[in-house]
Amino acid sequence: MVKNLTILLRPDSLRILKTHITMKLNRNFIMAAMLLIATGSPLLTKAAEATASTLASGVVDDQQYNRAIHIMAMLLIGFGFLMVFVRKYGRSALTATFLLVSTSLPLYMLFNRVGIGENESEIRRLILAEFGAASLLIAAGAVLGRLKMQQYVLLGLLFVPFYAFNEWVVLNGGLGLIKAGSVVDTGGSIVIHAFGAIFGLGVALTMTTKQEFEKTIETDSTSDRYSMLGSMMLWIFWPSFCAALVPAAQMPHTVVNVILALCGSTLTTYLVSVSIRKKISIADIANAALAGGVAIGSTCADASHTMAVFIGIMAGGLSTFGFAVIQSKQQKLMKIIDTCGVTNLHGLPGLMGGLVALPIIKGLHMESQLYGILITIVVAFMTGMVTGKVLPLLGRKLEVYDDSDEFLDAEE
Amino acid sequence: MVKNLTILLRPDSLRILKTHITMKLNRNFIMAAMLLIATGSPLLTKAAEATASTLASGVVDDQQYNRAIHIMAMLLIGFGFLMVFVRKYGRSALTATFLLVSTSLPLYMLFNRVGIGENESEIRRLILAEFGAASLLIAAGAVLGRLKMQQYVLLGLLFVPFYAFNEWVVLNGGLGLIKAGSVVDTGGSIVIHAFGAIFGLGVALTMTTKQEFEKTIETDSTSDRYSMLGSMMLWIFWPSFCAALVPAAQMPHTVVNVILALCGSTLTTYLVSVSIRKKISIADIANAALAGGVAIGSTCADASHTMAVFIGIMAGGLSTFGFAVIQSKQQKLMKIIDTCGVTNLHGLPGLMGGLVALPIIKGLHMESQLYGILITIVVAFMTGMVTGKVLPLLGRKLEVYDDSDEFLDAEE
Amino acid sequence: MVKNLTILLRPDSLRILKTHITMKLNRNFIMAAMLLIATGSPLLTKAAEATASTLASGVVDDQQYNRAIHIMAMLLIGFGFLMVFVRKYGRSALTATFLLVSTSLPLYMLFNRVGIGENESEIRRLILAEFGAASLLIAAGAVLGRLKMQQYVLLGLLFVPFYAFNEWVVLNGGLGLIKAGSVVDTGGSIVIHAFGAIFGLGVALTMTTKQEFEKTIETDSTSDRYSMLGSMMLWIFWPSFCAALVPAAQMPHTVVNVILALCGSTLTTYLVSVSIRKKISIADIANAALAGGVAIGSTCADASHTMAVFIGIMAGGLSTFGFAVIQSKQQKLMKIIDTCGVTNLHGLPGLMGGLVALPIIKGLHMESQLYGILITIVVAFMTGMVTGKVLPLLGRKLEVYDDSDEFLDAEE
Repeated sequence: MVKNLTILLRPDSLRILKTHITMKLNRNFIMAAMLLIATGSPLLTKAAEATASTLASGVVDDQQYNRAIHIMAMLLIGFGFLMVFVRKYGRSALTATFLLVSTSLPLYMLFNRVGIGENESEIRRLILAEFGAASLLIAAGAVLGRLKMQQYVLLGLLFVPFYAFNEWVVLNGGLGLIKAGSVVDTGGSIVIHAFGAIFGLGVALTMTTKQEFEKTIETDSTSDRYSMLGSMMLWIFWPSFCAALVPAAQMPHTVVNVILALCGSTLTTYLVSVSIRKKISIADIANAALAGGVAIGSTCADASHTMAVFIGIMAGGLSTFGFAVIQSKQQKLMKIIDTCGVTNLHGLPGLMGGLVALPIIKGLHMESQLYGILITIVVAFMTGMVTGKVLPLLGRKLEVYDDSDEFLDAEE
Repeated sequence: MVKNLTILLRPDSLRILKTHITMKLNRNFIMAAMLLIATGSPLLTKAAEATASTLASGVVDDQQYNRAIHIMAMLLIGFGFLMVFVRKYGRSALTATFLLVSTSLPLYMLFNRVGIGENESEIRRLILAEFGAASLLIAAGAVLGRLKMQQYVLLGLLFVPFYAFNEWVVLNGGLGLIKAGSVVDTGGSIVIHAFGAIFGLGVALTMTTKQEFEKTIETDSTSDRYSMLGSMMLWIFWPSFCAALVPAAQMPHTVVNVILALCGSTLTTYLVSVSIRKKISIADIANAALAGGVAIGSTCADASHTMAVFIGIMAGGLSTFGFAVIQSKQQKLMKIIDTCGVTNLHGLPGLMGGLVALPIIKGLHMESQLYGILITIVVAFMTGMVTGKVLPLLGRKLEVYDDSDEFLDAEE
Repeated sequence: MVKNLTILLRPDSLRILKTHITMKLNRNFIMAAMLLIATGSPLLTKAAEATASTLASGVVDDQQYNRAIHIMAMLLIGFGFLMVFVRKYGRSALTATFLLVSTSLPLYMLFNRVGIGENESEIRRLILAEFGAASLLIAAGAVLGRLKMQQYVLLGLLFVPFYAFNEWVVLNGGLGLIKAGSVVDTGGSIVIHAFGAIFGLGVALTMTTKQEFEKTIETDSTSDRYSMLGSMMLWIFWPSFCAALVPAAQMPHTVVNVILALCGSTLTTYLVSVSIRKKISIADIANAALAGGVAIGSTCADASHTMAVFIGIMAGGLSTFGFAVIQSKQQKLMKIIDTCGVTNLHGLPGLMGGLVALPIIKGLHMESQLYGILITIVVAFMTGMVTGKVLPLLGRKLEVYDDSDEFLDAEE
């Protein structure tokens, strides 16, 4: 026995293991990690501990990486194809999605690197950037079809700093207004969905012209089915969006909550759509079915499964009611067009999600949560209005919801 | 050395590690797990062992979670778009898919929770629920285009308990008919694919009307390409379906087997389709190419690679022959319409997959395997017939394979 | 303390753990791994070390498996739908994709098994086979619409040995021409992208007929949007392609590099497309946006983030210039049609990616890198020409870019 212990504790064990670690093969890499921890344990110095930490973060990085890729599928195919429902604007919706994502990801990562420093995990930084891109795509949905292509790029450049500012204030204690970590918003009901929708509303309010107000948005069966493809892509990967940065132990509960909320909103959307309109609207299905995912965002890691179903049902009902009843009133009263109805899909369910945390989460700092929601509304609306003033400096799109003036290839 | 050991074994090491664990950062979480196991090893009491088990299951949960999301992509986009081939029924096929999934997932998870208890891993429970949803979508494929939208929801409500009953009897020793674990059906050839197809056949047999029998199902090039999108989505993620709950050590062999079987059936489908019909049928390609995945289900973890290719070839041939030759005879003889041809894609290859385990798997309990197949056939057919009697209580769809009566938006 | 140590070191601890390991549940499997390493550490004999290695490789296998599935999505839906842009050839493009993948995967895996032996990890072998399939799909893109369906299968059968030969010579020291491992091509700019494009060029050069030269390739808005679906699918999963076999520690840097390069090429594609053509070409967007992924391949694990953005910008500009300016000149001068423009998307950016390693990577063996590129060009072009001579032995497709002669179902 003593001999075995001697082997275990021999002074060169760390050196041997370091040799293992420098070998570039993955298999040896992880095996070395395990060996290091096993044999090196009695010698656990700061250095060994740091190495162990690095190795462990490799496993976490990979877990988060898969979710980062899932979110990327949501950004491009999910949001992109959901916006293809405008019949003569499909190419533009997809091109704009490409440009919005390609503008915002590097810009946010640059901000984050300068702000938080180089020590942050790269994959975590990527996921935070993707969250920003999602919020931007939501905002763009409010004015889809009414911007020239270069204005989408400008929209991205203006949006990211405002978004990052709000995130910093609400979640990370920026300006000392709210204690860092006291607002609960795991899956971003408030800072991603509501922020994007209200920002978009601010832009639309400033920019909507009389022509836009009068022109009907055309759809057809092919664009409808593309829209459902986008919707399903978002539905499928939504659990990864909400659980992207959640600790491993909470992941299973979180993802099941998200799926239950989505099931609840999907069924409710069908029931409410048929009840109000007498027939099913495929636009309701493609959009409001997702409202459960929006609304469960804040509480996805904390709500019970029963509560998650309930949140989904409420959100689906609220969102469908928004599309079927509120939207036309909003257009008349506020004199704005919200092309994709982001108010009803991301705005109202997002705010609902932030508020529903108040009764659900024990020990929640109520004041912070309310402050966080309020600040998000104010910052989003104000900066959206400013953006709506800046964008027209690049001119106005002449023919809205139609991209034949901007694209070379003839539409059929 | 003694000093080092003292550090290792000092009484507060567990406490320190628990502090680590309660930190919410993932990185620290896994690092703590490794440290706990390393330093805590000589103290491995029941409590420490339980903690280690929890930590280890976090890694497994994440691995299974990725497969659960892959399966979700199969359910919604895979099965959903595969069914879009009916030209005037695309919106309905996709909406029905949404509703069938949203009905069955929570319902199955509820049953499973009540039946097996709260100790089951949540992700495992989710995967089992997804298996049920897949079987339901197969069943629905047999009567696609001939149900009102609310009847799909009712179909889901009726199907899940019958499916869960059969699963319980065949795989988990329910009623004491078959010893738990003695039927080999890793990827569900029998209890998922054959069950769903035969259940659907039972429903169709009871419900098919004269009008349905006479009306041609229209397709066009756009719906054909959507159908191929669904087919490819299923093909891509099929390995995750079969390996979803397979132990880590068997995963690589299993997924390669599934891919080889799919390659075999895809090539064979092309050859047989051209041989029988003189020209290629895109419907054959979109469907029968997947038959290898269906048939390898039972033996995916056990067959050799050569055998996997062979099973794929046989299944692709059988399924294409089914679509090209059997289907029209079945319609005349049995007086039923199987809209998506689930008999040929899931029924025959599923049964073949269950039977092929007999010669392939050493030490297989032959009697149990045959009993399992027989029980599945009987239960599926009987409960399908009952369901076919219940569904018309909600009325009959007047215009089949056309959804303009149920949807608000005009089709082009 | 002594008592605890006795427990730790009792002779039957390994046996007990082996019992754990043979239990088929994943949870116990990984837990046993951790326990083995923890308690077994003082006993770490060769056998225990081997077991630890097996267990560790399970974690790596799973990480690589997820990337393998991502690549599969690129192969089928990515490459497949990108090629659907030919309006009357969509079904064929998708069917050909199915057949090319189903031919090349088993064939490559067979070669690899015979060549490298059974010790290679199965998932690693699968990923290498997928790399080959990607290169084959690129090659097929050059002659898309001008082969009969059975000629795609023959193309696959001929391509794989040539591809494997080049990979063996350039990367694995085959024939002793280049020292194994001295060519840097992590994500395959040279051996996958450039090889496939130049091979395709060789085939096209030999096979292009006068009729093909004169017939216009028709597109429409639906096929354009399908094409964007394929493009986005490739964009989303490209990081997994490049990082598929990269060690865990380098993964985060690699994937962020790939995303940055793609963002760079996407933005540049838009700018250059509008600058040269005055209007946006959706074909430019769908294709050249991906050039950053092609060009970052060789240096994805080594370049700095800034450099990655720069490589993306250069590649996007080069590729768009290729589509907008070079392609028509190429057609006239070389008298060939490159249906999908693979020269511009994979050829030029691939070569650029291989060359850009020269200034970027410290300690790179310059001569080997240049030799590797040169050999790839020569082998690809020669074997492509040979293939172009062999394929017409199966006859000629009469009506190019139109598949109504080969498919049963009527096109709309």
